[in-house]
Amino acid sequence: MKNFSVIILAAGLGIRMKSYLPKAMHSLSGKSLVKWVIDSVSPLRPDNIVVVVGYKHEIVEEYLSKSNVNVKFVCQENQFGTAHAVMQAKEILKNYNGNIVVISGDVPLIKTTTISNLIKKNQKSASAVTVLSAEVKDPYGYGRIVRKDGFLEKIVEEKDANLNEKQIKEINSGIYCFDKNLWKALLKVEPNNSKKEYYITDTIAILKQLNHKISVLLAKDEIEIKGINSKLELSQTETLLKNKKIENLLNSGVSIIDVNNVYISYDATIKPDTVIYPGVFIDVGVTIGRNCVLKGSSYIVNSKIDDESIVSYSYVDGATIGKKVKIGPFAHLRPDSVLKENVKIGNFSETKKSFIGKNSKVKHLSYVGDAQIGANVNIGAGTITCNYDGRHKHQTIIEQDVFVGSNANIVAPVKIGKGALIAAGSTITHDVPKGKLAIARARQELKRRIKK
Amino acid sequence: MKNFSVIILAAGLGIRMKSYLPKAMHSLSGKSLVKWVIDSVSPLRPDNIVVVVGYKHEIVEEYLSKSNVNVKFVCQENQFGTAHAVMQAKEILKNYNGNIVVISGDVPLIKTTTISNLIKKNQKSASAVTVLSAEVKDPYGYGRIVRKDGFLEKIVEEKDANLNEKQIKEINSGIYCFDKNLWKALLKVEPNNSKKEYYITDTIAILKQLNHKISVLLAKDEIEIKGINSKLELSQTETLLKNKKIENLLNSGVSIIDVNNVYISYDATIKPDTVIYPGVFIDVGVTIGRNCVLKGSSYIVNSKIDDESIVSYSYVDGATIGKKVKIGPFAHLRPDSVLKENVKIGNFSETKKSFIGKNSKVKHLSYVGDAQIGANVNIGAGTITCNYDGRHKHQTIIEQDVFVGSNANIVAPVKIGKGALIAAGSTITHDVPKGKLAIARARQELKRRIKK
Amino acid sequence: MKNFSVIILAAGLGIRMKSYLPKAMHSLSGKSLVKWVIDSVSPLRPDNIVVVVGYKHEIVEEYLSKSNVNVKFVCQENQFGTAHAVMQAKEILKNYNGNIVVISGDVPLIKTTTISNLIKKNQKSASAVTVLSAEVKDPYGYGRIVRKDGFLEKIVEEKDANLNEKQIKEINSGIYCFDKNLWKALLKVEPNNSKKEYYITDTIAILKQLNHKISVLLAKDEIEIKGINSKLELSQTETLLKNKKIENLLNSGVSIIDVNNVYISYDATIKPDTVIYPGVFIDVGVTIGRNCVLKGSSYIVNSKIDDESIVSYSYVDGATIGKKVKIGPFAHLRPDSVLKENVKIGNFSETKKSFIGKNSKVKHLSYVGDAQIGANVNIGAGTITCNYDGRHKHQTIIEQDVFVGSNANIVAPVKIGKGALIAAGSTITHDVPKGKLAIARARQELKRRIKK
Repeated sequence: MKNFSVIILAAGLGIRMKSYLPKAMHSLSGKSLVKWVIDSVSPLRPDNIVVVVGYKHEIVEEYLSKSNVNVKFVCQENQFGTAHAVMQAKEILKNYNGNIVVISGDVPLIKTTTISNLIKKNQKSASAVTVLSAEVKDPYGYGRIVRKDGFLEKIVEEKDANLNEKQIKEINSGIYCFDKNLWKALLKVEPNNSKKEYYITDTIAILKQLNHKISVLLAKDEIEIKGINSKLELSQTETLLKNKKIENLLNSGVSIIDVNNVYISYDATIKPDTVIYPGVFIDVGVTIGRNCVLKGSSYIVNSKIDDESIVSYSYVDGATIGKKVKIGPFAHLRPDSVLKENVKIGNFSETKKSFIGKNSKVKHLSYVGDAQIGANVNIGAGTITCNYDGRHKHQTIIEQDVFVGSNANIVAPVKIGKGALIAAGSTITHDVPKGKLAIARARQELKRRIKK
Repeated sequence: MKNFSVIILAAGLGIRMKSYLPKAMHSLSGKSLVKWVIDSVSPLRPDNIVVVVGYKHEIVEEYLSKSNVNVKFVCQENQFGTAHAVMQAKEILKNYNGNIVVISGDVPLIKTTTISNLIKKNQKSASAVTVLSAEVKDPYGYGRIVRKDGFLEKIVEEKDANLNEKQIKEINSGIYCFDKNLWKALLKVEPNNSKKEYYITDTIAILKQLNHKISVLLAKDEIEIKGINSKLELSQTETLLKNKKIENLLNSGVSIIDVNNVYISYDATIKPDTVIYPGVFIDVGVTIGRNCVLKGSSYIVNSKIDDESIVSYSYVDGATIGKKVKIGPFAHLRPDSVLKENVKIGNFSETKKSFIGKNSKVKHLSYVGDAQIGANVNIGAGTITCNYDGRHKHQTIIEQDVFVGSNANIVAPVKIGKGALIAAGSTITHDVPKGKLAIARARQELKRRIKK
Repeated sequence: MKNFSVIILAAGLGIRMKSYLPKAMHSLSGKSLVKWVIDSVSPLRPDNIVVVVGYKHEIVEEYLSKSNVNVKFVCQENQFGTAHAVMQAKEILKNYNGNIVVISGDVPLIKTTTISNLIKKNQKSASAVTVLSAEVKDPYGYGRIVRKDGFLEKIVEEKDANLNEKQIKEINSGIYCFDKNLWKALLKVEPNNSKKEYYITDTIAILKQLNHKISVLLAKDEIEIKGINSKLELSQTETLLKNKKIENLLNSGVSIIDVNNVYISYDATIKPDTVIYPGVFIDVGVTIGRNCVLKGSSYIVNSKIDDESIVSYSYVDGATIGKKVKIGPFAHLRPDSVLKENVKIGNFSETKKSFIGKNSKVKHLSYVGDAQIGANVNIGAGTITCNYDGRHKHQTIIEQDVFVGSNANIVAPVKIGKGALIAAGSTITHDVPKGKLAIARARQELKRRIKK
């Protein structure tokens, strides 16, 4: 897409959200509403993305700065309406010759292709503005698109609509593509309304009066232009998004026991014949192979799971999991856990920043942190890598074929050589050479039991 | 509200419940049906609440006695109908001059204001009885309210109704407010029906015949008068109650990812911008601040959680949790756990009857019971406070800035002084002075590993 | 039922499943589709069950061989249509004189009584074939049953149907009962259709032409004859099956908080007044007594739980649980765990192949494997039975009234005598005589703490 810029309106509080956050910062599937809009326009490579911020602008600015998106901010200190908001971008875009898309920061489901079609229509038809419209079931409260011979005649607001116009189901989405006449039109907008605000919608009539061509493009699906105004609408949109994802997964061969009780992020990749049980929550950044089984109240985020692995009632964050791995029930994989083929992480076990080699087992009640573990290692129940001395974290190295007995403490930094054995109940503070047995525990004695 | 008493009918078995419990004892959101009715009338401060018990009366009596409500019990040994049930209260109320509300013990959603309006109407209209009615979609099986010139003419049962009467959607709720003529009317009730029972409904016709004034009050919502007769209806009523609560929370600014998969008790207080993920179950007695995050299959009961705290896949019972605390995943807080600001309780960790000071951490596989822990303490993985000697529980005191190494046993009663360090794998049986390092473990030795 | 055999068609890939599995091998509530069909016909004791396999036949054969059902396999190497599939069974059944039921392997909800009625009708009416039909809401795409004077006239496929025939809601289920004329009719089937396949349906017209009597039996419920063709339909059928089970349980007196968020296998037995909270998943092979409470994200499979027990947020697989036992939250019972009356298994505890006697407690962070534990034993927090030496599993015996202190290691094989006490932090490697105190830990020393 060439020769266009975008102005995103994200200055509002969103009073029905009953929140301390700016409206555009509310989170849908882990991503703020305004970021959804940015992610929809970004693939078209606009020359500029100008975000108009206002209410608690520092929150929006900080979030987007961290998001690594290339946007410019302008601040609408007082909110005097949408035309006034767009006006704040004039300083940046006044000499810009391309098209300008104006879109609200609260329409997360707008599609890239729809924006692209809107710009194309405006350019090809040489219009001063093209309005994106949609047909809705219940048009009450929206501006109606009045057409004449198929062309946009005017937009009529609810309060000004006559009985015929009120029947019209095609509404103004509030998303527009302007050419550079935008700035001229904006100057003529008057706050002739009960709220004394300047409305961007008025530019349409102004441009028409100036004999510019105005066009309209009908969006395919009304959910694309749906603004989110309350926590209820936010919740409903989550459900819409999720249901669509689940439908796609079922069609591609993923098995889902109950479509109403799984949560799968829009960006998840899951291969066929994987079975997802009720209660599973797959958050952003997850890739799952074939023939896996995900059970129960498992939570998975930012992780990759290879074919034929099982995750059962576990919490998996930032892990890379090989083939035929078994996790859980009740395991916790923390970031930078790398598990190779056929590894088992059993109940009440936790891994963090650790590599665990092929066939190795951490089956019960263990904490493995900052460790490099070779293949065919058995970590006994209750084993703990003591990686923290109160100030720094230290590395544990356990080579292949080691057997660590139960309730052992491995005080890092330490290295256990290939094939060594750690006796149950030992606290290991020094390196263990390969093939040796290390023991660090007291001898058993018997006394008389005094009953208390 | 002045000058009224209440008779609650709770003698029945509720045969469709297929249960060993009396019907009124079935639990809706953790509270028995009869207690819901008592809690609805109690704010009006009735002079007497008489509960008519019968089937397994000792269960109802014991439950309500423990509930700290001021009720009198009368026992209907054999169940000969609703009029017979009310008759059992005569001994207590025969000389009572105020109004008498008669209500079944199985209508948990009746509102206090509705009862109040019922009594007011009876008193202001100087009626002998005012019947509470409701308009229902499907009136089949209910007694119909037949009005004449707007006034109650009679109540017609299904089997006696003519075709016109069968069309009437206004039904008798079975909730009444009588004046003292109740007792006179009851004496005239005859068991002229197939079950040979004495029905309270018959008193309406009797009082009319005696030329008393009878009135009717229409309830606002049919769910108020809905009796619960089966496990299915009980389940449906849970859902009704929960949905209403969730609607209120969304409107007040709480974020809920999926309204169909959270459970929030009617009495919960949750501040705006707190986000509740699917699977969370908030049981009775819970208060939650702003900006908290509740994730996954967490269960929370009788607890208070301050702003910006996170509870993730954890079980929280009877805890008091400060600001910015992180719980879970897979933590278990038991009663009388007090966690101050910024505390972290990590995976597979349990606290009970313990105070944990600001910034302190119990991050992995630990049990902290009967302990007083100061600020900035680090409890290593696998640490256990050995609070039980088989007979008594003992206290552990850990002062601020202590570092406890992994897999330590702290055998109570014992005190660890400020800034002390416990070496990993130690069993601490004596007090540790401040600033000292305590160690109780064997030296590491190496032997030859004999492969089995 | 006498004198009949069954041919089950299970050779297809099921292309819309988007799977590497043969269609009949997809799993509904833990049982493959073809096994559902076999389990429906088996109670009628057919003389033969012939399963026609084809696509990845070894998977079907292996699964059914392990399932302990008495079936014969024939292989349809290339799939040339349903008539061709049935033809493969000729070698086995050509001299068989009884009736032959032909049924697809993807109709899991077909009822035994319906099959029985189909055979009876064919036998009593002396028909050459009886077609099972069903009335469906949307008949589009199905073969319509055209009746004349109530009798089956012909089956018309969608593409051949006239406008009147298209209105017919009675459709061919594809399930038939033939007499031995089947083989004769099959020989006359021609592949006169766009796919050049041989269709079993054509035998109906052929038999009619040969002046044989043909009949039709209308199934009671259309879900019985519903074939499963996609992962979406598989998911929908899971929900159907589950809802039916839940309805039955509610009617029998089980309390279920939210019918939309529990999962209960078709074969579960649950007694009245047991309460099931949202999130519970009861898989196959489970029996639960009265007055139990099942909470949260609990998973239960192949287990028996006696009256008044509580399972809370736990994973229970292959356990036998006595009365008044408390499990969880966050416990894991593995196969062959036997818990007697009043046992408590608390948080982050695991049992496997172990017997635990009356009143004994394993309350925190313990692993009990391959152990025999007597009555009134207290297993301290963090205790581990070290049952594995890297090669073999060994037994631990703990007699009644033993008190095991926290973080103890019990290195098997070992026996702790009645009433003995194990000191906290001890690693027990030798038998402990009854009544003795065993201790195996170092003495506590104090040093200067060096701050890092």
